[in-house]
Amino acid sequence: MPFRGTGGLGDTEAMPIEAYAAHQPKSQLEPFRYDPGPLGPREVEVRVTHCGICHSDLAMIDNDWQISAYPLVPGHEVVGTVTAAGPEITHLKVGQRVGVGWQCGSCGECEFCESGQPALCAQQRATIVQHHGGWGSAVRTTGDFAIPIPDAIPSEFAGPLMCGGTTVFTPMMHYAVKPTARAAVVGIGGLGHMALQFLKAWGCDVTAISSTHSKEAEARKLGASDFLATKDEGALAGAANRFDFIISTVSADVDWNAYVNMLRPGGMLCIVGVPASDLRIGAMGLILFERQVAGGRTGSPQDIARMLDFAARHKVRPMIEKFPMADVNRAVAHLRSEKARYRVVLEA
Amino acid sequence: MPFRGTGGLGDTEAMPIEAYAAHQPKSQLEPFRYDPGPLGPREVEVRVTHCGICHSDLAMIDNDWQISAYPLVPGHEVVGTVTAAGPEITHLKVGQRVGVGWQCGSCGECEFCESGQPALCAQQRATIVQHHGGWGSAVRTTGDFAIPIPDAIPSEFAGPLMCGGTTVFTPMMHYAVKPTARAAVVGIGGLGHMALQFLKAWGCDVTAISSTHSKEAEARKLGASDFLATKDEGALAGAANRFDFIISTVSADVDWNAYVNMLRPGGMLCIVGVPASDLRIGAMGLILFERQVAGGRTGSPQDIARMLDFAARHKVRPMIEKFPMADVNRAVAHLRSEKARYRVVLEA
Repeated sequence: MPFRGTGGLGDTEAMPIEAYAAHQPKSQLEPFRYDPGPLGPREVEVRVTHCGICHSDLAMIDNDWQISAYPLVPGHEVVGTVTAAGPEITHLKVGQRVGVGWQCGSCGECEFCESGQPALCAQQRATIVQHHGGWGSAVRTTGDFAIPIPDAIPSEFAGPLMCGGTTVFTPMMHYAVKPTARAAVVGIGGLGHMALQFLKAWGCDVTAISSTHSKEAEARKLGASDFLATKDEGALAGAANRFDFIISTVSADVDWNAYVNMLRPGGMLCIVGVPASDLRIGAMGLILFERQVAGGRTGSPQDIARMLDFAARHKVRPMIEKFPMADVNRAVAHLRSEKARYRVVLEA
Repeated sequence: MPFRGTGGLGDTEAMPIEAYAAHQPKSQLEPFRYDPGPLGPREVEVRVTHCGICHSDLAMIDNDWQISAYPLVPGHEVVGTVTAAGPEITHLKVGQRVGVGWQCGSCGECEFCESGQPALCAQQRATIVQHHGGWGSAVRTTGDFAIPIPDAIPSEFAGPLMCGGTTVFTPMMHYAVKPTARAAVVGIGGLGHMALQFLKAWGCDVTAISSTHSKEAEARKLGASDFLATKDEGALAGAANRFDFIISTVSADVDWNAYVNMLRPGGMLCIVGVPASDLRIGAMGLILFERQVAGGRTGSPQDIARMLDFAARHKVRPMIEKFPMADVNRAVAHLRSEKARYRVVLEA
C-alpha cells in the first residue's frame, strides 16, 4: 500500500482490472482489461471472490432494455474484499468482506438519498450500466453501496442475495407484508426459490406457483405449504381470493387477471420479474376488492443490510451452482438454458 | 303506524312502492309498482326525497357488467327519510334523514364484516343488483347501510356523495394519502369534480387532468392549482415523476403508462373509473420506482359516515342539475349526453 488518503484506508493507485466483457449485444464474453482510473474520495475497490449471474446480466449483455454500453462487464451480485478506500471512507476497512449489488452510486442530495432511500434516486448509478461490474478481478463502487456481509453467510451464497435476495425481500419490507399473510410466489427459479424461504421465515403461509409439478418437492422443502401448477386445469381459478400477497418473479407474459383474482380483499400482486409486454389487468378486479399491483425492486443499502441480517439469522440461502470465473461463457449458457437450480455463481 | 316491532320503530306492513324500472337492456325507464314484502327485522324503509344518477346506474340499465336483473329499478345515491324500521333496528329513528349508497347489505359474519369493512364482504348485496333501488317512492335497505346525513348537507347535495363521493374519498383514507402529497385527478366529471374538492380540503396540492382546457376555470375554482390537457402535445410527459397520488375517474381506454410515469417514487395510481378494456401497464415503470396501481371503491358505512362529516366540515358539495323524478328518462338522456355539470339528481 504505497499511499493512504487522509481519513481513508488502502491503496488509491489505480491497477488495471482483468475482467470479462461483452463487446456487442448477445455476444460471448471476452477477456477485457481496463484501467479504472484514480479512486474517488468516496469510492472503494473490491477484489472479487464471487459474483452471481442474474437474469439482468443477460438482459444487459443482450441490450434488452436499450441501455447497454459496450464493452460491458456484467456482474452485480459481487462478493469480495475491500482492497482500497478513498480518503472520505470511514465506515469500511481494507480487508473487510462486502457485497455490491445492482446499485453502486446515487446523487447523495435528493430527498430520497437524504431520507435513506437512494434506491429511488433519479440520478442513481447501476453497477453494470455505463460502469464495469463484477465479472473480473475487482470492481469499484461508491463506499455507501459496499455492504458488509454477516460472518454467518459464506461468500458463495452471499452474491445472489445482493440482487436476487434484496429484490424479493425489499417489497416485503416496503409494502409491509404481515406474518399473518397467506403469500404466493409465482415462478420457482433464481428469485422465487429465495422468496419462498424469506416468506416462510417471515411467518407467512407460502404457496409456490409454477407451470408444472416438476419443482414441487423442492419448493416444499424451501418452505411452501402448498403448490399450484398453472398447467393444471382450473388450478388458479380454484384459488380465487386466497392470497394477501403474491410476488411474481416471472418474465413471461401470463394471464395477469388470473393472479389478481387470487388476491384477497386488500391484497397485493407485486411484480419483480420484467415481462416483455405490458401487464394487462382488468380495472374491475382491482376495484371490487381494493386490490393493488405494485412494482418491487432492489433495496437501498440499509434494506440490503437488514435483508442480510435476516438471511443470516434464518439461514436463508440461495441454492447455487458454481463455475470458475474463467468458465463464464459456460456459466452464462447454463443459465440461459433455464436448467440452473437455481442461481449460478462465478468463483475467482 | 299500526304495528311496532319489539325494539324497532315504524310501520312494518308492506305498502307497494311506485318506482321506475328498465325492463330490458338499454331501454327507457317505465313506471313500475312492486310489493317489497314484509320488512325484515334488521331492515329499514326509506321514503325517497332525492336520488342521484350515477354512471353505474346507466351501466346497470344497459347490462354492461352482465349482472343486471330485470325489471331493474336503478338508483343508489338515495336520500330520504326513514319511514319504517324492523324490530332489531335501534340506531335509527323513524323520521330520521339518511342516505343509501351502492351497498345495502352484507353477510354480517365474515372477517370483513366483523372488522368493520363490509364493503369487502364477498356476500355483499348491492342496492340495484337483484334489489330495487331508489328511483321510486321508497327503497329498502339493511339498517346498517342507511347512513345518517349531517344537518349541514342539504338533501339535494347528499345523494351524489353517497356513491360518487365515497368512491373518490375512500381510497384517500384506505391508501393513506398524505396532506403533503401532490395529487392529480384524471377526468373532471361526476367523480372528478368531487375528488378535486376532497383532495384540496385534505391538504394536497391538486392538479386537474382533462382532455381539453374547457373545464380549466371550473377545475381551478373547485381546488385545482394546476391543469393539464391531455390533448396538449407533451403535457403528460412533461409532468413525469410529479405526483404522489393520481386518481383516475375515466372510463376510457387511455395510455396508462403515461399516467404511471407521472408518479413519483412510491406513488400510486388509483383506478375508480371502469374502462372497457384491461389496463395496459409496463412492469418496468412500476418496478423502477416502487409505483403502485390500485383499485378504489365505495366505502363501508363507517367510511361513508366519515366522508359525510368531512364533506360537511369542508363544504364539499357536488355540482348538480336537478330533474323531477317523473322526468327520469330526460335526466338519463342528459347524463348520457355527457353534458351534465356534473351530477344529475332526481327530486321526488
